Amino acid sequence: MAIGLSNNLPVMHAVAGVRLASAAAGIRYQGRDDILLIEISESTHCAAVFTRNLFCAAPVLLAKQHLAEQSLLGTSPRYLLINSGNANAGTGEPGMQVAMSTCVLVAELSDCQPSQVLPFSTGVIGELLPITPFENSMPALLASLDESGWEQAARTIMTTDTVPKGLSRKISLGGGVVTITAMAKGSGMIRPDMATMLAYIATDALIAPGLLQKSLDQAVAVSFNSITVDGDTSTNDACVLMATGASAVVVDQESDDLAVFNAVLCELCSELAQMIIRDAEGVTKFITIKVSGGESVEDCREIAYTVAHSPLVKTAFFASDPNWGRILAAIGRAKVNALDIDVVAVFLDDVCIVRNGARAESYTEQAGQAVMDQEEITIGIVLGEGDASATIWTSDLSYDYVKINAEYRT
Amino acid sequence: MAIGLSNNLPVMHAVAGVRLASAAAGIRYQGRDDILLIEISESTHCAAVFTRNLFCAAPVLLAKQHLAEQSLLGTSPRYLLINSGNANAGTGEPGMQVAMSTCVLVAELSDCQPSQVLPFSTGVIGELLPITPFENSMPALLASLDESGWEQAARTIMTTDTVPKGLSRKISLGGGVVTITAMAKGSGMIRPDMATMLAYIATDALIAPGLLQKSLDQAVAVSFNSITVDGDTSTNDACVLMATGASAVVVDQESDDLAVFNAVLCELCSELAQMIIRDAEGVTKFITIKVSGGESVEDCREIAYTVAHSPLVKTAFFASDPNWGRILAAIGRAKVNALDIDVVAVFLDDVCIVRNGARAESYTEQAGQAVMDQEEITIGIVLGEGDASATIWTSDLSYDYVKINAEYRT
Repeated sequence: MAIGLSNNLPVMHAVAGVRLASAAAGIRYQGRDDILLIEISESTHCAAVFTRNLFCAAPVLLAKQHLAEQSLLGTSPRYLLINSGNANAGTGEPGMQVAMSTCVLVAELSDCQPSQVLPFSTGVIGELLPITPFENSMPALLASLDESGWEQAARTIMTTDTVPKGLSRKISLGGGVVTITAMAKGSGMIRPDMATMLAYIATDALIAPGLLQKSLDQAVAVSFNSITVDGDTSTNDACVLMATGASAVVVDQESDDLAVFNAVLCELCSELAQMIIRDAEGVTKFITIKVSGGESVEDCREIAYTVAHSPLVKTAFFASDPNWGRILAAIGRAKVNALDIDVVAVFLDDVCIVRNGARAESYTEQAGQAVMDQEEITIGIVLGEGDASATIWTSDLSYDYVKINAEYRT
Repeated sequence: MAIGLSNNLPVMHAVAGVRLASAAAGIRYQGRDDILLIEISESTHCAAVFTRNLFCAAPVLLAKQHLAEQSLLGTSPRYLLINSGNANAGTGEPGMQVAMSTCVLVAELSDCQPSQVLPFSTGVIGELLPITPFENSMPALLASLDESGWEQAARTIMTTDTVPKGLSRKISLGGGVVTITAMAKGSGMIRPDMATMLAYIATDALIAPGLLQKSLDQAVAVSFNSITVDGDTSTNDACVLMATGASAVVVDQESDDLAVFNAVLCELCSELAQMIIRDAEGVTKFITIKVSGGESVEDCREIAYTVAHSPLVKTAFFASDPNWGRILAAIGRAKVNALDIDVVAVFLDDVCIVRNGARAESYTEQAGQAVMDQEEITIGIVLGEGDASATIWTSDLSYDYVKINAEYRT
């Protein structure tokens, strides 16, 4: 059902210094890969953002701790270990111990420190992650690491996703060509508040850690942090940007290349984030919400999210019903600083449905219906308060969303 | 499907000074009453609360304006005119004109001022309310006003409600017996932020306007403003408390009777509010969320509402799945001032599912399942931050919620 996506990924360029391996360990799913190991070369710089949910999962806590230790020691992570099927969240101290055990396992078999391994988990919350599948799979995983493992990796990290999500670019910079390859997973429990549910981006550019984190933060703000399926911020969100430096092409604050690199990174993250919405649980509509003319970006985002989270708006879109009254009602209850309803205009694509806070005189139900019958729709909301604007992406609320989430654990 | 409610109302005691009449005017529905006229005796005091949605409907704007005028003039409203099937919201200036025309119509035929008529509408947003059905029905409505019209009235104001909602009490006070009779409607677009979608309460007690408004505000805070179906605050919410004084029993600040009256009013409002949740669109579970041990009531309410609005929590309840990880994840993303996840406990009825932020050792899936199989469930969340607490009521998210709202206008 994913909108505008196929089960085939585009070409996923290898990134020098990054090798990947997947295995079917039977953590929860049968007959498909569910553990992914990513090896990154020594002195790779890693930038990362994690969920702001206070109930963050054991692997999130441990990955943050390991990154901090590496930073203090002046060394770098060597492995990312990712499993699907079990989030290892809400599992308390036993969950932390299992997460640590998986890191120790990788370290012992690969001769690095446990703190050089970053663990990530995604799947059901509240069940203890078993260690045995990791013990059974690790030797084979380490033996099969390969630069061409990206496509399979994107499939390994899927949970309720129906298609894998990945993108890759080669960029010509002053010092030469660098590659960026990225993948993500996510379909429900999507309202990232820092990063989305597992995204991994690698480049062979040589970028200093502080700069790398800044580039990632900027890209995440306009991509993963601008999407929502259901308003439910995950306990396991994480997004990692790895720069191996293997191309020897330096991207630094002084160069024009930084702007180029950041622009491509933003574009990749934005496309990946939109892929998550195109494959949202039960999705039948891909909805872009653009709010402009706001007093502040915060006001614009609050209005956009209030509309995006309204079950009434979402079910109207599922029904292809141009029930614009529900959009107005959602705008009217948004907790914003500045809103004069008498100047608000609302558009469905190019069709003006509301002008000056009421039904536009030119509006016809037929024109609204024609837009609503599409799979991809833009809601434009013009406030008339100032110059700020914001864009977010969301999905509708269908029978299948209820079905998928009612039957998730059965 | 309403939980614990039947299509039969309890005895609805007449309130001296209040007469009601219903008519089938064909505004939207066929074969059922859709216009209600309530006449209140001269010098009846009216207290009212309305939606805080900035896009409030034309009748809301006009009712507030008329109440303010009456207050300035020292006179009282004489009629409440209520229609279902059309909300007259998002209709701009033409909508205001129609609302005013309906008031003029009543005034001309009954010899009062138009500003003594309070208009209310509920139903589809964004369509102009026709005046003809009012013109056709008004003479018959005025001719059939009757003190015993409460039960039919409760049916006339229904939209997606499956059962009428009403309650009535006789209270023995120092000065004699007074009656309170109340009705409400509402099933979807329910997250009142001041009052719920149309509730009317009448008493024959004699209470001064300022005191009456205070009593209503207190009752609404713990009843209508503590329920949510879908987080969507309506454009048309209104709750009116009318005191005719016909019993000649005085309730004033000096008497002990005020506490008794307020307690009964709170109880009535609370039961009415819960009736709305029991009849929520597509409801299969009646869920009480009690948050205690918070630093402030605001924190407790924010956590309760975040859990109540989570589509993932709601679909898990629909599936009778004790997927407590989703409750934790919702708590963890609530925007509160004080929350230490390591001390949080969560209960399903009496079953402790989470202790100290992780799965309780004593918890078994069987025990959780037994509670989830019930139709009525209490989620208890204990924070350990302070002494504040809050209780709200909500429903689950079912296929039928999607169906009802996807097909609403077809």
